[in-house]
Formats: sequence, C-alpha cells, structure tokens
Amino acid sequence: MAAIGAMPEINSLRQKSRKSFVTLLLTILTSSQSILIVWSKRAGKYEYSVTTANFLVEALKCALSLAALVRIWRKDGVTDDNRLSTTWDEVKVYPIPAALYLVKNLLQAGLDFFLQYYIFAYVDAPGYQILKNLNIISTGVLYQIILKRKLTEIQWAAFILLCAGCTTAQLNPSSDHVLQTPLQGWVMAIVMALLSGFAGVYTEAIIKKRPSRNINVQNFWLYVFGMIFNAFAIMTQDFDAVMNDGFFHGYSLITVLMILNHALSGIAVSMVMKYADNIVKVYSTSVAMLLTAVVSVFLFGFHLSLAFFLGSIVVSVAIYLHSTNKARR
Amino acid sequence: MAAIGAMPEINSLRQKSRKSFVTLLLTILTSSQSILIVWSKRAGKYEYSVTTANFLVEALKCALSLAALVRIWRKDGVTDDNRLSTTWDEVKVYPIPAALYLVKNLLQAGLDFFLQYYIFAYVDAPGYQILKNLNIISTGVLYQIILKRKLTEIQWAAFILLCAGCTTAQLNPSSDHVLQTPLQGWVMAIVMALLSGFAGVYTEAIIKKRPSRNINVQNFWLYVFGMIFNAFAIMTQDFDAVMNDGFFHGYSLITVLMILNHALSGIAVSMVMKYADNIVKVYSTSVAMLLTAVVSVFLFGFHLSLAFFLGSIVVSVAIYLHSTNKARR
Repeated sequence: MAAIGAMPEINSLRQKSRKSFVTLLLTILTSSQSILIVWSKRAGKYEYSVTTANFLVEALKCALSLAALVRIWRKDGVTDDNRLSTTWDEVKVYPIPAALYLVKNLLQAGLDFFLQYYIFAYVDAPGYQILKNLNIISTGVLYQIILKRKLTEIQWAAFILLCAGCTTAQLNPSSDHVLQTPLQGWVMAIVMALLSGFAGVYTEAIIKKRPSRNINVQNFWLYVFGMIFNAFAIMTQDFDAVMNDGFFHGYSLITVLMILNHALSGIAVSMVMKYADNIVKVYSTSVAMLLTAVVSVFLFGFHLSLAFFLGSIVVSVAIYLHSTNKARR
Repeated sequence: MAAIGAMPEINSLRQKSRKSFVTLLLTILTSSQSILIVWSKRAGKYEYSVTTANFLVEALKCALSLAALVRIWRKDGVTDDNRLSTTWDEVKVYPIPAALYLVKNLLQAGLDFFLQYYIFAYVDAPGYQILKNLNIISTGVLYQIILKRKLTEIQWAAFILLCAGCTTAQLNPSSDHVLQTPLQGWVMAIVMALLSGFAGVYTEAIIKKRPSRNINVQNFWLYVFGMIFNAFAIMTQDFDAVMNDGFFHGYSLITVLMILNHALSGIAVSMVMKYADNIVKVYSTSVAMLLTAVVSVFLFGFHLSLAFFLGSIVVSVAIYLHSTNKARR
C-alpha cells in the first residue's frame, strides 16, 4: 500500500527534476547565445547569409532528433508513441509554428528595410530591445487565451513584474527615446510580440496535444517544416549570394558555434514546452538575459548599472512570487 | 441578534474608512509638501532659520491638538481617555521620538558640515535621495522587531518591490554614482535610515500602547517635547541669527505655507500611526513621491522618464500584493 502510494510521488519528483533540468539548460544556452552574439560583434562583421545559417540550424535539430530516436528504437523498440510515420491529422498543424517563426524572422532579420522604415526610423536599436519585452506580456495573454490555462492573480502580478524588471535592467541613458515611439512603431512592436508569443504558445499546444507521443518525433516533424520554410527563404532572399559565393560564404568559427548553440537551444525550447510551459520559457530567457550581463562583466569588462541591480531584484521577486503561488495551488 | 451581530461590522467599516481617510490625507499632504519645496527652490532661496520653522511647526501642531481637545471636551465632557493631565508612567517615553527626530534633523539639515563631509563628498544630492529609500527596508525590519508584528512572506516581497520601485522611479543619468559610494557613505546612510525608521516605529509603539487614549492628548504630549527640543536647537544653532535679525527673518508666503503643511502632515502621520501603522505610512509617502512627479509635469513642465513609468508599475504591483495578502490573512 505504502509502496503503491509512493509511486506517483517518485514520478512527480522525476517530472520535476526533468523540468528543472530542461529549464536550466535553456537558461544556459540562451545566455551563451547572447554572449556569442556580443563576441561575434566584437570580432568584426562576417558577411554570411542569415538564411543559410537558419536552414542549417533546422537541419541540425532534425538530425539530432533523429539520432535520439534511433537510440530509443534500439532500446525500447518501435512503438505507437515513438514511430516516425504519422497521420495527416497529426502532422497538419506542424507547419504553422515554422511559418510563424519564418514570418517573424523575415520581419526581424530579412526585411531590414521594412523594419528600418517602420521602427528603427523612430526608435534606435537599444530602444527596440526594450520594446521586445512586450513579448512577455503577449505570451502571458496568449497562453491564457489559447491554452485556456489560468494564471492566478499573483502569477499575473509576477508576470507584470518580470516585464517591468527586465526592462528596468536594460535601461540605458538613451532609453527614454522609447517614449517618443510613434503609433506605427508601437503597432509594429505589438504585432511582432503577438507573432512571437503566438508561435510559442501554438507550439506548446501542438506538443501537449499528444502527451504520450515521443518528443523527438514531434521535434522531427516541427524541424522538417522548419527546413522547408528556410529553404524557401534562402531561395527568395539569398539565392544570388549562395549561387555566386557558395552556401558557406563568410562562415567562421563563431558562426559555426552560433549555429550549434541555436540548434541546441531550439531543442531545449521544445523540451521546456513538453515538460514545462511557455511561462517557464519566458522566465528562463529573462534570467538568461540577466546572466548574460553578469558574465559579460567578466568576459568583456562591461559595467553593471544601478538600473540593472534594481531590475534584477524585481525579476528575482517575480520568480519567487510565481513559484510560491504555484506550490500553493 | 442580527442587529447585535452587525455592530462590530459597522465599527470595522468605520475603522476602515477612517484608516483610508488618514492615509489619503497623508499622501496628499506629503505630496504637496514636496511641491512646495520645488516651488520655493524655483522662487529663490529664503534665508530663514530652519530651526525656528521647525519650532513653529511643533507649536502649531500642539495648538491644533489642543483645539481639537477643547471641541471634544465640550461635546463629550472630560473623561479618563481624553483628559490632558497625565502620569509620569505615560509621559516618560514621549520625549524619545522627539529626541530621535531632532537628532535626525540635526544630521540632515543642521549639521550640514557633517553630512557634506561624510556623504555628499562621495555621493551627490540626487544620489543621496536614492539612498534614502533604505528607509523603507529599515522601517520594515524595525516594525517586525520592535512591534513584534509579522509581515507575511508576500508582504515582505511587496516591501522589497516598493523599495526597488521607488528607487527605479527616481533614477536619473547620474544615479550610477551611487554605486561608487564608499563604506562610510553606506554606513551613514544606513544609520540615518535606522534612526528614521526607529523614530517612526517607536512613535507607533507609544501611541498604540494605550488604544483607548484620545489621539489628540497623545499628540499634545508628543508635540510639547518636540517644541522643547526644537527650542534647544534654536539656542544652540541659530541664537545669534534670531537675536540679530529677529525670529521671523527671511520668512515668506511659501515659508508660512510650508510650516502649515508640515504641521498638518505631522498630525496626519500621528493619525496613521494610531489607526493604521508604519507600513501604511511608508506606502503612503511612496505614492506621494510618484504623485509629486506627475503633478510636477503639469505645474513645472517636468518630464517623466521611462524609469519613472517602470518604477510606478512596480510600486503599484507592490501595493496590490500588500493589500490582497492582508485581506486573505
């Protein structure tokens, strides 16, 4: 009786430690990603095609998922939950996140012109970084609407604090320009935030819809469509550059490291969606932002501002409030 | 039965609305006090003796308490709770807050030399304003230790947020200098915070010790000692100036308004101590700080920074957390 009673407890403990592990992994990978970006900027500009790098990230994730699956098949055999073959009913929704991410990437990196005209013309780059914190709020709103899971009032308070804390931590002497953002800039920033939030929440919905289905199979199909959409992006945006200078033109060690890191953190995001949720993902990437700043002090001699300390305090309290309120639910 | 049962409910409702009223009053008075200070700075410097103004504030508070008492005696007659005569046992603790406030005032305004040498030499005036937010934390700590009333974990989280939010709202381009404060500066700032927190919490302890004693009697005795201590300050600091130029030398309309305002807000502080507590007082003065900034936009054409908005959001969430957690207790 006692032994049977203890079983779900062990399972729940295993789930909890798995959840903690993937969250920690995502935090570290996201943080090292930002550090690689700072490093690559310091090392000078490399003129590689962003679309080819994105394609390689998807291909690498696909390969890693397949490798994980082969290991599982050898160990457990092929079952209904881990077989690669799928039905139209299961796979039909998988292109949607890939398409959303592509649109987001096109908006963010590809269609520079569009961005420069609509946002950067009014708001400078650091200002845009600050507007990106709207993602936090949009994720919370869409999480509640689409996944129909309610955040408690305290958790909402924590989420608002997370957004305010992250923004405070990123304040710099030119941040006040953000207040001069005209309506078009706000609309664009909100559209980007909604797109990004929707892609995340929709991915979670897809992955959570079949809880027993192996995550590597789900990832495989997600990334296959990622590859297809990014191949499309190469053709429309960088076809000439790839044809003339080659697929890997402008690649360096840092580029390779960034691709590796993006692939691993992409997989970590999927794992967080499977074993935790988008809310945990947002907390994880926020902590990664703070972590990056602290590590940059040692690596690049950056200085931390008073605003950074204050923002970190607010983020810490937000994490505390979110976690205690969850435990009491 | 229903009527009897309803009685404490009506009383509790009356207590609540009285508490809300004194809190609102304190917020408005504190805010208008800050506005008067900005106004007086803009209008030019008046060379009046600060000690004489402080003395007049105490005298005015004393007179107002006495006037209120006379009204009460006429209405209710003289009772044990509202008679002015007192015992040594009751009155012996009353000089302590007055003495603490005097020491604090001496440190803050009187002994400019001391301050300049120990704090302002390292930290500029706006930097010192930011260090003053340590008052919030010191009040919370002393409230818990001296009054032995426990704040819940969520209320502590809210209090830390209040401190971080107020500091964020006051951030300006030169705030980062605070981080260069040497040890002596921190020690001085912490001593000032503890002194100010202790004076507040000790006053609450005195007033709350006799709940049925009329607040106007308690105020009268507090202010009598305030007058005595400030008379002492005049004699030691401004004796020559008062003898040569007169008691009211350098007074202007703004000086008179500031004295009036100080007297009224002093009484409001006592009321908050009686019907609410030091925690409510801290929230009230924090909101007053934000209110002052908003009003200054209209009155003096001040600009609000992004940091101010972020700080206001954090303070609002802190108030929300404090109030919901209280209601559920």
